[in-house]
Amino acid sequence: MERPVRVGVIGGGFVGSALVELLNDPERHEALVDAATAPLELVGVAVRDLSKSRRGIDSALLTTDVEKLIDSDLDVLVEVAGGVESARTYIESALKRGVSVVTANKALMADSGTQLAQLAHEHEADLFYEAAVGGAIPILRALRSSLAGERIERVMGIVNGTTNYILTQMTREGSDYASALAEAQALGFAEADPTADVEGFDAAAKVQILSTLAFGTRLSGDEIAREGITGVRDVDVEFARRSGYVIKLLGVAERVGPFGVSRRVHPAMIPSSHPLATVNGAMNAVFVEGVKSGPLMWLGQGAGGAPTATAVLGDLLDAARNRISGRHDVPFSGDLSLRYVDAGELPSAFYLSVDVLDRPGVLAVVAGVFGRHDVSIRSMEQAGFGDEARLSFLTHHALQLNVSATVTELTALDSVDSVSACIRVIDASFE
Amino acid sequence: MERPVRVGVIGGGFVGSALVELLNDPERHEALVDAATAPLELVGVAVRDLSKSRRGIDSALLTTDVEKLIDSDLDVLVEVAGGVESARTYIESALKRGVSVVTANKALMADSGTQLAQLAHEHEADLFYEAAVGGAIPILRALRSSLAGERIERVMGIVNGTTNYILTQMTREGSDYASALAEAQALGFAEADPTADVEGFDAAAKVQILSTLAFGTRLSGDEIAREGITGVRDVDVEFARRSGYVIKLLGVAERVGPFGVSRRVHPAMIPSSHPLATVNGAMNAVFVEGVKSGPLMWLGQGAGGAPTATAVLGDLLDAARNRISGRHDVPFSGDLSLRYVDAGELPSAFYLSVDVLDRPGVLAVVAGVFGRHDVSIRSMEQAGFGDEARLSFLTHHALQLNVSATVTELTALDSVDSVSACIRVIDASFE
Repeated sequence: MERPVRVGVIGGGFVGSALVELLNDPERHEALVDAATAPLELVGVAVRDLSKSRRGIDSALLTTDVEKLIDSDLDVLVEVAGGVESARTYIESALKRGVSVVTANKALMADSGTQLAQLAHEHEADLFYEAAVGGAIPILRALRSSLAGERIERVMGIVNGTTNYILTQMTREGSDYASALAEAQALGFAEADPTADVEGFDAAAKVQILSTLAFGTRLSGDEIAREGITGVRDVDVEFARRSGYVIKLLGVAERVGPFGVSRRVHPAMIPSSHPLATVNGAMNAVFVEGVKSGPLMWLGQGAGGAPTATAVLGDLLDAARNRISGRHDVPFSGDLSLRYVDAGELPSAFYLSVDVLDRPGVLAVVAGVFGRHDVSIRSMEQAGFGDEARLSFLTHHALQLNVSATVTELTALDSVDSVSACIRVIDASFE
Repeated sequence: MERPVRVGVIGGGFVGSALVELLNDPERHEALVDAATAPLELVGVAVRDLSKSRRGIDSALLTTDVEKLIDSDLDVLVEVAGGVESARTYIESALKRGVSVVTANKALMADSGTQLAQLAHEHEADLFYEAAVGGAIPILRALRSSLAGERIERVMGIVNGTTNYILTQMTREGSDYASALAEAQALGFAEADPTADVEGFDAAAKVQILSTLAFGTRLSGDEIAREGITGVRDVDVEFARRSGYVIKLLGVAERVGPFGVSRRVHPAMIPSSHPLATVNGAMNAVFVEGVKSGPLMWLGQGAGGAPTATAVLGDLLDAARNRISGRHDVPFSGDLSLRYVDAGELPSAFYLSVDVLDRPGVLAVVAGVFGRHDVSIRSMEQAGFGDEARLSFLTHHALQLNVSATVTELTALDSVDSVSACIRVIDASFE
């Protein structure tokens, strides 16, 4: 039998407790030893507050002294406490000692994943962070292992459970955004301040991580176009449903020509026959398109203590195997030639909702604006409300900057009250 | 720079050629070296017929002498020629020399995967076969790596592209089985003798492989209940559609109690809102349910030279990394306590189609038979055709053996012409 692999954990919350429970499950003991190629020894669990009871964690293992834990001859440090700066300090401290690190820290990995991976490599340690994107879905390992030899063209996902829960409720119940958000908050699916989720910041951090692994981009986290779901109305969701679509918040990273990458977060209408359309509630999904592999998709729980802990455990087993065999994974070389391409230069179909004064000739004027900007209309629906009418357009593929120019010109018309929705339409099939 | 990893390939068909193309792609060269942690050197490609032209393969690499190729100081042998006995000979020969093996050979792995994995382990070599199940989908690596620490309760998949193509056409075009099969044959999606696909033998081989990896079962390949799609009629597909379902051929392996595993292949009605229902044409999907991870699903191309080659390449990169670091993956210990449970003991909802003589009292008699066997009816639809009527039933959950007894007793009734469909209904949601 090999020597045990010494594991320290920072964080005794939902994920930390669920991980300790997995490590202590007698029924899985043999499978863990098989997979790790050695027994795993839990050396300690660092927490902020020793007085809090921690379900399933032996109190003798609890400590508040993180640096001492890192310094106790660890093989692997698991960081599931969250926070950016404190986590960075601990992770750097561990890596500099040659201790491998497994973390679920999405914000830190989006901000400094490349640099920390380099630091790990310099000290012959591993840095794994499967749980940072898509919860239980083993997508990052697939990108760095199964698909390592593949040229990936596009990564597209539903990577934020809060917004997906809200949009699912709007679709199912016909509720408006405000009440769906309130319900999500009441049920604990959304924070009291939901900004990070509903404005797309959380999804953008995941796009940053996915893009780095899929394409080797070394772009800044700011180079992601970002639009949240706060502007999505019940009438938009209902129009989508009638037209055979559902509205989802997507995170997208895709190659554009030989040297470009578009990275963006935005709501989109997806055909209801597409697998992404069936991803409901707090589920996550990631769709990957490779030149040779064709389309691939992963679905699973995007959050929650136990699902996240299974992703952390998968990383921990990988790191343990590497320690026992005296090796570490080498991070991929980046591709410094890839530059960020503004989404305006890309073609897409769009849905536009235009509120107009209901009088003769308005439709002709509105349609004329579309035509002048090279935006071709695929279908139009008109609904009247007294003096006003709502025009709902689906366009053929058009450049986003032409669609934006159309919106600007429409908004300036006397007969147009407002353009109250402008949402991308994804028409890709999946077979 | 590390020494090159010496690779030999058996098979110069679609998969072999696509693999060689991937290995020779100058744009991916650096990524491959990064992922393999060494350059890959293609030593030779063994083929049956040297006179055939092989797109993209340097003719100087071609050979008909497989044993000599295996004996040329190889690190990894890739077997993509198919056939069972010859492949077994070559793979055993390579493993006994300590050469790692990557194969796409589903039939051989279903038959002898456990024994060959043991042989590999004894000789400190790897045996990987990602391409044997689900084409490009990296599901086997996920089972042996990311989910190694997880207790898996169920694996369920659409793992045969031919039958999925046929069922998709029946759903979309309303065509009957015979004409959908003929079309699939004309387009190359089905063999001239389609038995292996349409009778579920191919799917059963994949269930055998998945069950071995997910649960460590050491059961024989015969211990899989198997029902193909030849009995699925256009009226069944149409009834499913009207009721909010689609019919798919599923391969299933699931735990039953502490010591049981049910393994089966059969058509099933799946809610059209379930992600599996959106897997159309020749696509494949595998759904995995873990105790902690919750439901996970993988979708992708189930066949084709290039997609299959990407799965082979992923394995090859894994095997190469292991060679360079002087290690090999250890196969999981099996779980010899798991026994095969007959599907009859399991509950499921069912759809039954019963052709009856249309006369007073028949429905009461038929319904009485259901009741006597403890099969509770959820809904019924009657369609008349002159003297005859077709009764379509959806049941609540019932034991399969009770449903079988119902079918037997119904068939014996004078007023019943036949029970022409008895198909499981899956009502699991996915969130």
